[in-house]
Amino acid sequence: MGETGRKGQFEFWFDFSSPYAFFAAQTVKDVARRHDLHLVWRPFMLGVAFKATGMQSLSNTPIRGDYARHDWVRLARRLQVSFKLPSNHPIVALPASRIFYWLEERDEVAAGRFARRAFDAYFVEGTDMARPEGAAAEAAKVSPFSVAELAAAASEPAIKDKLKARTQEALDRGIFGSPFFVVAGEPFWGADRLPMVEEWLASGGW
Amino acid sequence: MGETGRKGQFEFWFDFSSPYAFFAAQTVKDVARRHDLHLVWRPFMLGVAFKATGMQSLSNTPIRGDYARHDWVRLARRLQVSFKLPSNHPIVALPASRIFYWLEERDEVAAGRFARRAFDAYFVEGTDMARPEGAAAEAAKVSPFSVAELAAAASEPAIKDKLKARTQEALDRGIFGSPFFVVAGEPFWGADRLPMVEEWLASGGW
Repeated sequence: MGETGRKGQFEFWFDFSSPYAFFAAQTVKDVARRHDLHLVWRPFMLGVAFKATGMQSLSNTPIRGDYARHDWVRLARRLQVSFKLPSNHPIVALPASRIFYWLEERDEVAAGRFARRAFDAYFVEGTDMARPEGAAAEAAKVSPFSVAELAAAASEPAIKDKLKARTQEALDRGIFGSPFFVVAGEPFWGADRLPMVEEWLASGGW
Repeated sequence: MGETGRKGQFEFWFDFSSPYAFFAAQTVKDVARRHDLHLVWRPFMLGVAFKATGMQSLSNTPIRGDYARHDWVRLARRLQVSFKLPSNHPIVALPASRIFYWLEERDEVAAGRFARRAFDAYFVEGTDMARPEGAAAEAAKVSPFSVAELAAAASEPAIKDKLKARTQEALDRGIFGSPFFVVAGEPFWGADRLPMVEEWLASGGW
């Protein structure tokens, strides 16, 4: 494990159906590496957090939704990545989130590869990630497990509980949005904050 | 007027009771100057926008409010500015917003000075800016007008209508948050976006 011995963790909390998390996912690994931190992917159920804070999906919010759709296309041009909001957006990202944690228990590196793959499948290729089979097929591409094993993983009671526990952990720790970063105990909300996270790390904090 | 002849406008939309607008106000003038843009201060009634989008004040939002309070103190340390959330936060910023537009019709430079003064009075000195007399006293410090004139301005029907019209303009143009920047027709929401606004201006846009 090349990550062993690094001095701290870079926690990246997100929902697989969050466009801003997709954009953060493009650079978060480089950010962690630049500061010698171990990147920890932490999918959680954003909808549960929305209920706790009284928020709702950006896409479903008047005026803000229009801005967000304009902004996502613009950010894709800025990062020179492909991006296409799926017609069924936002989906429930349960299968991908559960498969992620199942993989993480077996092979953390493969789980990280799957996280990137799941984002690309949904936001670049338009794959239906709401279906366990769709998410499992993507996971099979980047891990040593079969589609059947991975699809079954998405309905394992222990894994369902794990995702619930991670979501509760998020709420208990004040993590309410996607993406959300925690670095050395310090919380930062929003993809726009990545440069500030780096400034904070480089300066030793304010 | 030293601003005449500049090539474009940097519109800064905000609510006087918005902490993130306070932080943006610290640097927005320098940003505009660096890109040879004319800074236009545009207070509006954020509460009206909240009704349109189904949002509410950050301070009143569970979990997000706790994050925001932590974040504001941290941002103040980062910018090395004083900041103290008033005990009656958030206030209704009608008097300051109306006095701003009254001043702007007479002396745009004084209006800009008042905007900075109003933010400092509320977020640094704890002045009660919900009272017309409180806002007028601050305006008198940075303009050639008397407290009595300025307090009366805050209840002039034409000025009340002007603030309503600016707020409607904001909603019609998709401006729903504070701070919100519009540069050459391009909208950017949030204090965190200022570096990206500069990148956008420097690169000619993406």
